Amino acid sequence: MPKIPLKNQNLAFSPIRKLTPYAEAAKKRGVKIFHLNIGQPDIASPEIFLKKIKEFNEPVVFYERSDGTEGFKNSLFNYYRRLNLSVKLEDIVATTGGSEALWMAFAILFDPGDECLTFEPTYTNYQTFAELAGVKLKGVHTYLENNFQLPPVTALEQVFTNKTKGIIITNPSNPTGAVYPEAMLKDLVAFCIKHDLFIIADETYREFIYGKVTTRSLLSFKQAEQNVILTDSLSKRYSLCGARLGCLVSKNKIAVEMANKIAQARLASPSIEQYAASFLGEVPQSYFDKVRIEYQARRDTLVFELEKIPDIKVNHPDGAFYLIAQLPVVDAEDFCRFMLEKFEDKGETVMLAPAEGFYLTPGMGVNQVRIAYVLNQESLKRAVELIRLGLVKYHNE
Amino acid sequence: MPKIPLKNQNLAFSPIRKLTPYAEAAKKRGVKIFHLNIGQPDIASPEIFLKKIKEFNEPVVFYERSDGTEGFKNSLFNYYRRLNLSVKLEDIVATTGGSEALWMAFAILFDPGDECLTFEPTYTNYQTFAELAGVKLKGVHTYLENNFQLPPVTALEQVFTNKTKGIIITNPSNPTGAVYPEAMLKDLVAFCIKHDLFIIADETYREFIYGKVTTRSLLSFKQAEQNVILTDSLSKRYSLCGARLGCLVSKNKIAVEMANKIAQARLASPSIEQYAASFLGEVPQSYFDKVRIEYQARRDTLVFELEKIPDIKVNHPDGAFYLIAQLPVVDAEDFCRFMLEKFEDKGETVMLAPAEGFYLTPGMGVNQVRIAYVLNQESLKRAVELIRLGLVKYHNE
Repeated sequence: MPKIPLKNQNLAFSPIRKLTPYAEAAKKRGVKIFHLNIGQPDIASPEIFLKKIKEFNEPVVFYERSDGTEGFKNSLFNYYRRLNLSVKLEDIVATTGGSEALWMAFAILFDPGDECLTFEPTYTNYQTFAELAGVKLKGVHTYLENNFQLPPVTALEQVFTNKTKGIIITNPSNPTGAVYPEAMLKDLVAFCIKHDLFIIADETYREFIYGKVTTRSLLSFKQAEQNVILTDSLSKRYSLCGARLGCLVSKNKIAVEMANKIAQARLASPSIEQYAASFLGEVPQSYFDKVRIEYQARRDTLVFELEKIPDIKVNHPDGAFYLIAQLPVVDAEDFCRFMLEKFEDKGETVMLAPAEGFYLTPGMGVNQVRIAYVLNQESLKRAVELIRLGLVKYHNE
Repeated sequence: MPKIPLKNQNLAFSPIRKLTPYAEAAKKRGVKIFHLNIGQPDIASPEIFLKKIKEFNEPVVFYERSDGTEGFKNSLFNYYRRLNLSVKLEDIVATTGGSEALWMAFAILFDPGDECLTFEPTYTNYQTFAELAGVKLKGVHTYLENNFQLPPVTALEQVFTNKTKGIIITNPSNPTGAVYPEAMLKDLVAFCIKHDLFIIADETYREFIYGKVTTRSLLSFKQAEQNVILTDSLSKRYSLCGARLGCLVSKNKIAVEMANKIAQARLASPSIEQYAASFLGEVPQSYFDKVRIEYQARRDTLVFELEKIPDIKVNHPDGAFYLIAQLPVVDAEDFCRFMLEKFEDKGETVMLAPAEGFYLTPGMGVNQVRIAYVLNQESLKRAVELIRLGLVKYHNE
């Protein structure tokens, strides 16, 4: 019997989804679950997209070009132009979700054994794409007490080695919701240029910034344009998680050529969604504004309600739709499982994502959870009430 | 400026698509091109699929489960049951096209430096997925003169080394259209069991077998069920290339667990297509029969017409919708480019795929092309006429 190699032994199931069997069991018992564990917005997808899906009228669902259809790429081009990013069509490779862009970036930019820095807690799936490329992902700590802001460059210099070839940065951040101010990004860019590092800029949550903090796309740093590989996604921006469309953008021609070679091997992204996405330029600014106002209100409600719980600590996110809460428990994963297996109030409970899986350093974040505020305010209030009741019951068990 | 590593320097643009710029230039000149270069069927996608796409009625395009929706997995399960393959739901991981299943298989089964055997000419994109996993793809020759049949096991023993950890086999074959008889597969399976090799069984063209040859799925060899990883696709079976749905199937629980971990990192396959694909069980057997009869007639026409060209040699495929033609030229790629750049007859020309890119051994297949018979018979006749006229003009230049 042939043996599966050990190289992938560190691959982990997603901490966001690993408790799913317990949730399914709870649902089978008739329990209603408020899902705060996954970044699946409940906001309606743009009408124009859903309309165009219905209007797809080809008799054959053909392969499209491997770098994306002209229509979809043009809609991306126009979107970036509105953001004043000087992107050309040939800088863009359409991908099957932002995830595919991340996979490509890790496959292209590194040799096995290379190191890539990230700020922890970090987006958990980076770890898988790094593992598959043989890359060691090294965490630079950020802290709840400090609202998960970027550390000074000296902290980066401390973890930098001669194997460090890049950094991946998520701005706004998943899982913390932190938004990195322009001044800090400047320091980061200078550090990366000094050490010839690639910068994978995951800006999936670009449209979700609530505070007054001034930030900017890493693609806009002219001096770093050969360093930056942008990965982007329609999933959150347009509430189109299941459409599986995103892109990789870079001014680095070799990186784009490599991405295009990989893109050819996987043939193409979905045709029907690309057709519908080519009309996304028609989505008015008011769509984004409305969504942003909605999430800001949710954030305010969530933080306000959570901070009523004794001995809880939460950060105050300026962007995305996540925050990290430190619970008055020893083991947050045990508490999350408890909430699904042993707790319910009036037939309802909550699903949370244990935060430990978002940290690379063992032992960090053990008493933390990531909360996605992707439910309306009434549901959020009830969900927090359930957490509060759950904590009482958990401590009395 | 950071340097893109050299590890991917062998990544190549697809030989099927590399002449596309010349084709686009020809189209801009107003020339009509008969595309024999790409395996994009012109057969209508099943009506039920297109209907259900229009009926997708969710207000939010949600993420689906990373291993595939229950509906889509059930439709795959029922399909395999009809083929008498004893597959369980948990053996199936839904993927974004057969391509993603291939990527996963190479990422899971091998360590960097391992070797994987394939029969050449081979499906060109295996090379990219192997490269990305650091795997050396080693070709075992098959020959036009022999209709590209599998060589005896002694030929496999000759290329086998202690680094050989698997074999990838495409049955029916792309690019040759060869179908491998059951007796030969038995020998192959025995060889793989003897040497503890994984078998990646790419059976994308299963429904396209025209001759009387008896073959079977490698998944049906009970003694090899821990060795076999099936990769499959809806693209050709249902003429749904642009739907980007396929699957990885295995009885090897560790392989499936690894695939599921990767699947979680890339989150999910497209939701709308999975919804529509869950109804594909309603496609009647007559759909497959009609398609098979159509392709068989095309094959017969194509072979008959091609063999009228002086000094041409073609194989007689029993399956898929490809054949290899050896042309009376020194350099088939040069001829293919000539056909796009310098030739037209009544405003028409032909695009072919140079076969050299389907071979791993340098120098092989230089005077060969792959022809996909994905056009109706009248178009095929005209396309062959254009090849004949093109060869005359090419030799008179």
